[in-house]
Amino acid sequence: MRHKIMDFRSDTVTRPSEEMRRVIASAEVGDDIYGDDPSSNELCEYAAEMTGKEAAIYACSGTMGNLLAFATAGRHGESVLAGRRSHVWCSEVGGLSAIAGLCPYPLNDDGGIPAPEELSAASRADGDIHHAQTTMLALENTHNYAGGIAVPPDKFAATAREGRRLGFHVHLDGARIFNAAVRHGVPVGVYAEEVDSLQFCLSKGLGAPLGSMLCGTREFIEEARRWRKRLGGAQRQLGIAAAAGLYALKNNVARLAEDHENAALLARLLKAGGVEVEEVENMTNMLFFPLKEGQISDAEFEAKCLEKGLLVHTISPRRIRLVTHLDVEREDVVSAAQIILEVLSA
Amino acid sequence: MRHKIMDFRSDTVTRPSEEMRRVIASAEVGDDIYGDDPSSNELCEYAAEMTGKEAAIYACSGTMGNLLAFATAGRHGESVLAGRRSHVWCSEVGGLSAIAGLCPYPLNDDGGIPAPEELSAASRADGDIHHAQTTMLALENTHNYAGGIAVPPDKFAATAREGRRLGFHVHLDGARIFNAAVRHGVPVGVYAEEVDSLQFCLSKGLGAPLGSMLCGTREFIEEARRWRKRLGGAQRQLGIAAAAGLYALKNNVARLAEDHENAALLARLLKAGGVEVEEVENMTNMLFFPLKEGQISDAEFEAKCLEKGLLVHTISPRRIRLVTHLDVEREDVVSAAQIILEVLSA
Amino acid sequence: MRHKIMDFRSDTVTRPSEEMRRVIASAEVGDDIYGDDPSSNELCEYAAEMTGKEAAIYACSGTMGNLLAFATAGRHGESVLAGRRSHVWCSEVGGLSAIAGLCPYPLNDDGGIPAPEELSAASRADGDIHHAQTTMLALENTHNYAGGIAVPPDKFAATAREGRRLGFHVHLDGARIFNAAVRHGVPVGVYAEEVDSLQFCLSKGLGAPLGSMLCGTREFIEEARRWRKRLGGAQRQLGIAAAAGLYALKNNVARLAEDHENAALLARLLKAGGVEVEEVENMTNMLFFPLKEGQISDAEFEAKCLEKGLLVHTISPRRIRLVTHLDVEREDVVSAAQIILEVLSA
Amino acid sequence: MRHKIMDFRSDTVTRPSEEMRRVIASAEVGDDIYGDDPSSNELCEYAAEMTGKEAAIYACSGTMGNLLAFATAGRHGESVLAGRRSHVWCSEVGGLSAIAGLCPYPLNDDGGIPAPEELSAASRADGDIHHAQTTMLALENTHNYAGGIAVPPDKFAATAREGRRLGFHVHLDGARIFNAAVRHGVPVGVYAEEVDSLQFCLSKGLGAPLGSMLCGTREFIEEARRWRKRLGGAQRQLGIAAAAGLYALKNNVARLAEDHENAALLARLLKAGGVEVEEVENMTNMLFFPLKEGQISDAEFEAKCLEKGLLVHTISPRRIRLVTHLDVEREDVVSAAQIILEVLSA
Repeated sequence: MRHKIMDFRSDTVTRPSEEMRRVIASAEVGDDIYGDDPSSNELCEYAAEMTGKEAAIYACSGTMGNLLAFATAGRHGESVLAGRRSHVWCSEVGGLSAIAGLCPYPLNDDGGIPAPEELSAASRADGDIHHAQTTMLALENTHNYAGGIAVPPDKFAATAREGRRLGFHVHLDGARIFNAAVRHGVPVGVYAEEVDSLQFCLSKGLGAPLGSMLCGTREFIEEARRWRKRLGGAQRQLGIAAAAGLYALKNNVARLAEDHENAALLARLLKAGGVEVEEVENMTNMLFFPLKEGQISDAEFEAKCLEKGLLVHTISPRRIRLVTHLDVEREDVVSAAQIILEVLSA
Repeated sequence: MRHKIMDFRSDTVTRPSEEMRRVIASAEVGDDIYGDDPSSNELCEYAAEMTGKEAAIYACSGTMGNLLAFATAGRHGESVLAGRRSHVWCSEVGGLSAIAGLCPYPLNDDGGIPAPEELSAASRADGDIHHAQTTMLALENTHNYAGGIAVPPDKFAATAREGRRLGFHVHLDGARIFNAAVRHGVPVGVYAEEVDSLQFCLSKGLGAPLGSMLCGTREFIEEARRWRKRLGGAQRQLGIAAAAGLYALKNNVARLAEDHENAALLARLLKAGGVEVEEVENMTNMLFFPLKEGQISDAEFEAKCLEKGLLVHTISPRRIRLVTHLDVEREDVVSAAQIILEVLSA
Repeated sequence: MRHKIMDFRSDTVTRPSEEMRRVIASAEVGDDIYGDDPSSNELCEYAAEMTGKEAAIYACSGTMGNLLAFATAGRHGESVLAGRRSHVWCSEVGGLSAIAGLCPYPLNDDGGIPAPEELSAASRADGDIHHAQTTMLALENTHNYAGGIAVPPDKFAATAREGRRLGFHVHLDGARIFNAAVRHGVPVGVYAEEVDSLQFCLSKGLGAPLGSMLCGTREFIEEARRWRKRLGGAQRQLGIAAAAGLYALKNNVARLAEDHENAALLARLLKAGGVEVEEVENMTNMLFFPLKEGQISDAEFEAKCLEKGLLVHTISPRRIRLVTHLDVEREDVVSAAQIILEVLSA
Repeated sequence: MRHKIMDFRSDTVTRPSEEMRRVIASAEVGDDIYGDDPSSNELCEYAAEMTGKEAAIYACSGTMGNLLAFATAGRHGESVLAGRRSHVWCSEVGGLSAIAGLCPYPLNDDGGIPAPEELSAASRADGDIHHAQTTMLALENTHNYAGGIAVPPDKFAATAREGRRLGFHVHLDGARIFNAAVRHGVPVGVYAEEVDSLQFCLSKGLGAPLGSMLCGTREFIEEARRWRKRLGGAQRQLGIAAAAGLYALKNNVARLAEDHENAALLARLLKAGGVEVEEVENMTNMLFFPLKEGQISDAEFEAKCLEKGLLVHTISPRRIRLVTHLDVEREDVVSAAQIILEVLSA
């Protein structure tokens, strides 16, 4: 009989390790709104250096990091090109329109990234007075809803460069950019250098409890700082969170490879049991499969799995997502596969 | 040698007739912001009655009429489903996001109207906290960029009803709804009764120099009135424009059939000359054809036509639009076809 | 027995004269969104030249002209200094915040214009991250709610120059700037040269039925054009309105002096009858007086005056405004004074 | 020679105590976006109960808590009445306009709270189409820029009740409401019951490193939750911060009395030395005094104090604020007074 609940819903559910808790408890802190928090300052410098950007700023979440980029680089009445399945458009509660005032136009990101040649066709940066002039391009890597795809550096660069050639501010929603970098064995800077700004999450795979980083030029980050204050995202003794983030950046990047192996194992086990796992090039730490017509309902599937100690996430109707992360061991993967196969065959 | 310039760019170019000018010159006027303009009041009543809605309000343009609907029915942070080729999304300068704060999500409107079954799949009205909850559906009829298609009443009703069943405020961008009604031989109320609000243009095919009407419930129109003031769209001696609009509504609806015949004739003539006119079901007063690879450039095509006395519009790269209207006679159609064939064969 | 209703509510109620109607009826028009309306083009050039600005654009109303200035020169999250009794803040439905995203801070404009030394004290342009950085200053001349005061050129310049010295975009809500210019016997350019942008109304005292002009640099007006389209303020055969505006500019400026004389006469007559007319330096075409405690209610006062053929406006509780204009003759002034004195003494 | 820096800039600078750090390190956590964080859930219940409201939600900062209230209760184009010196208007970067779309109108809050009779005079809730209809009233207690005044319960109730009578949503920026409650010896619910929503800070005097709480009806909080997500203020393993907040609420409320005593002592010492400390009724944990003409510059004053180990804050030009808090001992107060007197007399 199992006691532990295995949580495969998302890599956002990771809990801080004992070591990380010690780091948090002993974090040096100050009032970050006065610029006095040493842990936050160190984290920002570290993030900037790691990504090769001039500056970085802490955001309360990936959503806030992305919103800061939109509000800072864009202006009400302009437009942004974004993947039709992108997180910034689909799952950030319309903030890019409601707060940053931008009108989104869709690109095809089924393969994780739009093709470069799509950009000029979709662009509204033509001076026509009817058109919300396009000033931004938003990319995502790894791409969550397309299947956790780690877009390879060359493919990524091709689209990002075309975006910059067209004069767009290219922003990378890199909530899981370290998964992409590890998957392709490159430093994160290889992606970062192709974009004007990028956001990455300290929570999710890296295992920190809180926070994200937005990186860009010094001028861009200073303006983002003003927007962060306006959103209410500036905080006081931020070191409590920042120290954990710094620890995560220093210790938990390389180990993402384990999550990828675990996800691959899980895919193999499920496929061996007849589940039609979505085929994805450059898979990382997540996999998706459909509940087929005639099969169990979404709610029932979730409930039956939970009875057996497994938490799963219905990402959209009839589509299940499983995510591996810091708190998932190889043996959990084996158990999870078994539970799912049992529930589906029941 | 021709002296007259034939303008096939749009039905927005119509000039007021002598009779309409007389109506304008003798219009009874008052300060409409005080509710004192008799011509404006009469126009609003007439438009409401004609569409079967409780109330109507004059807007400076179709764009303003649509924006009033978005700002009144929606709320910052919600989302609207709209055709990916819809005018409200593509050609109204992002106002639905920048001013009404709505996030648009695409429907397939290649055939003029999205299929009813697309709506629930695209809807974000699921309570999920990540989703900009969908509260509006925007339809367009006739559908401009899809080819001037007059969506038939039954097809229109099916989608609109599904939208209302899902709890959306269904708004019709009916800039050219009279073209649709005339094309299908129904009163405009047949379309209007299927939606919560509709906007139609007095300029365009109806031939008035200025203005559009937004129609809906009394409560909706009262709130739209407040938004119109906020946009700066409330005007003083509006009767000057309203009287022309009223004249257009009373005199120029039925004659849209001529424009449709002229467009059909133009299509036949061009096709006979080898032009690959886009095939469209329920065509109205416009037609589209491509400039093919290797053929003359867009700018050259426009210039050569103009030299011969014909104004045409490149609606998007390599795509020409021709529109018939009040100021285009049957003989102009014959001349226009001849000019285009000459230019293309040169 | 009177038949004519005398309308002293506002100078917005003026009706086009026979001559102006003839001008309207014979206006040359084209599609202004294509830049093809000759009357509109001529009006813009004329307005630019008259004010000494590079360019001008037609707006549907004074409110829209002001809003275009705010949206063009400001950015969401910045702040604007404005008189606490200014029309832009008090009577334009919050558009400067709701649409342009600006936060207003108050200046004392009881005397018609804030003192120069108030500006640096009120400014938030200090780089402090808590502050919505001030980037605009809005002035008004003549100042409506302060009493229709025509701020003299030197006083106006002192404040405007201090605003520019502080780096603000200085915008003039000059809905009635011609009343100020005529009152002080200077060309309107004397005011216009002190500001970055100005809006003036063609309706109001100048007697056109519709419209306002926004003037500024070419670059500013081009961006305002984009915002006008976004608001839905771009129109088609605008010449109908523009021709009237042009006629008003050419014919009705100098005669504003009559309105000022009429207002002065009205004030004298009322004061002679014991009414405590507000004392105002540099009065123009309006006057204000209180309904005192114990006197007739606002609604009753309006009703009794109307019974006798006089329309008046309660501008705020217990405060009556009377405005002279093109449609008010000297004899109307005498009758109006008599009616008011009768009603008050009843 | 001193080694410790005494920080009197703000009560936002408090650092977590050893005990609080232990609580943080051992906090039970979960993914709060899935509703799984037990510490966060407990904090919300505790805050709701303490204030007598149905529900509560964690916000990243006081600014965010206030913004959530504005965005949830207000609608773009409406207006809010706020003290002209209120923090929400003066120091939250214009978010109430830029994000919530509200237009602010000023009330006199020099005494800490506007008088009830001011409300109806300032209100724009009159249906006039020119007016941004007033739907909210924002109060602040203790009132920071007015001098840290703890507005007494009866005075507070009088204004709040008048606001509700007028149909406004009354929001309390209670960043330091516990200082007010302790100062007047009442439970916080005495204030909370007079308002529709209130925000209070866990950081500031209560000594938690991070966060604020927004409290209101269940429905209001659910909608605020959606806005929090849109702003990017929803977080993952929030328990890290929430546990500290809960500890602060349970342990650090009553001790605010010490801060008040310390501030009173500091005022006495400074006045005894000739400093013209601002006289304030119902003073709490802060005091203000001017740098007089001819005296040392603001920057020099700050620098000289810092040399001697004292951090002070220039709240506006020529106005110094000193704040007592958890990390300030009685002996620090004595030293601080001495340093200031030395610097001023040098």
